[in-house]
Amino acid sequence: MRTYGQYCGIAKALDTIGDRWTLLIIRELLALGPCRHTDLRNGLPGIASNLLVDRLRELEEAGLIHRKAAPPPVATTLFSLTERGRALEPVLQELSRWGIPLLREPAGSDTFRTHWLDVPARALTDHRPDQPAIALQLHADGNEDLVIEVKDGSVHTHAGRVDHPTASLTGPPHLLAATLLGELDLSAAVQQGLRLSGEHEAVLRILPR
Amino acid sequence: MRTYGQYCGIAKALDTIGDRWTLLIIRELLALGPCRHTDLRNGLPGIASNLLVDRLRELEEAGLIHRKAAPPPVATTLFSLTERGRALEPVLQELSRWGIPLLREPAGSDTFRTHWLDVPARALTDHRPDQPAIALQLHADGNEDLVIEVKDGSVHTHAGRVDHPTASLTGPPHLLAATLLGELDLSAAVQQGLRLSGEHEAVLRILPR
Repeated sequence: MRTYGQYCGIAKALDTIGDRWTLLIIRELLALGPCRHTDLRNGLPGIASNLLVDRLRELEEAGLIHRKAAPPPVATTLFSLTERGRALEPVLQELSRWGIPLLREPAGSDTFRTHWLDVPARALTDHRPDQPAIALQLHADGNEDLVIEVKDGSVHTHAGRVDHPTASLTGPPHLLAATLLGELDLSAAVQQGLRLSGEHEAVLRILPR
Repeated sequence: MRTYGQYCGIAKALDTIGDRWTLLIIRELLALGPCRHTDLRNGLPGIASNLLVDRLRELEEAGLIHRKAAPPPVATTLFSLTERGRALEPVLQELSRWGIPLLREPAGSDTFRTHWLDVPARALTDHRPDQPAIALQLHADGNEDLVIEVKDGSVHTHAGRVDHPTASLTGPPHLLAATLLGELDLSAAVQQGLRLSGEHEAVLRILPR
């Protein structure tokens, strides 16, 4: 890793996590939990395989991730964040918040993975923490499914489907993202083609006000 | 600017401010206010002049800074942050917070500028907002002077000296930084060579507890 050689917390942080792709690798591990090399490549379209190997080694040396040989049936190496790596979540949250206005345009030729909504989803507020837990199912056109779980005032996501979601949102990535991130009213998003089924109120419970 | 081509707020943010040196340029403009090219170079030891020119042009195109021809006696171009550029302060704050543990070691061959303490100083809490305003004078060995002003619950810094500071702290950069950032007790720092004059209580008013 190159160093700025500056006695400054910001510069020191960037010495460790300022290289190209590094923070996106942290985003993947934060969103997905323990990952195989192949999971990371899937969530980082465009990264060269040898660059990913280099970055993972650097992150391990810096104490931000650890690797573990998982026994069969997984039978491969799994990468996960250390406590120091997870401590980067606020950096990612602030980058995400600052970047949200840049998502106003449709995705165009950009790639998309539904789990990229994990970091901004964690920043959502459960406006009704007194209510029972709910699960929102997201279907992004042509993409993986994501579940947003809202329970006791906190918001989490995981990949996949639940059997009986409280509500489902289906549509193109930019409508899902803009709605969840408060850039577009739910009713306006529905007019533009977002499909909502189930309890309307459940979605409003977490949308920014 | 290279793009990750990902429809993700974090990736979009990094498309704009992820290049080497860019966030440190933002740090300088946040700490110093409107700057000449020569001020920026002084605060960014190691940056190539043409790289700084390129980055400033990219930041201007992205709407994060603007340039203005200042009339005589300044008679040069001044660069300053736009509102969108200033909105990066929370990103810098979180990077700084994450980077503080990396400052535990003395500076060694690292360069230092006292005004690099501006961003972490802004994050300090005035524990006695009911008390009159105070000014703390910092003298880092071999470096520029910095004033920390504490008033009505907020903490700001500016370069230079005040005539009658409430307290002064003088010493090597790592003792000043570690003390201000809560990594070292004031009494331990004094034992290690930090010189404190004036009102001890004034310093404790802003040190992390």
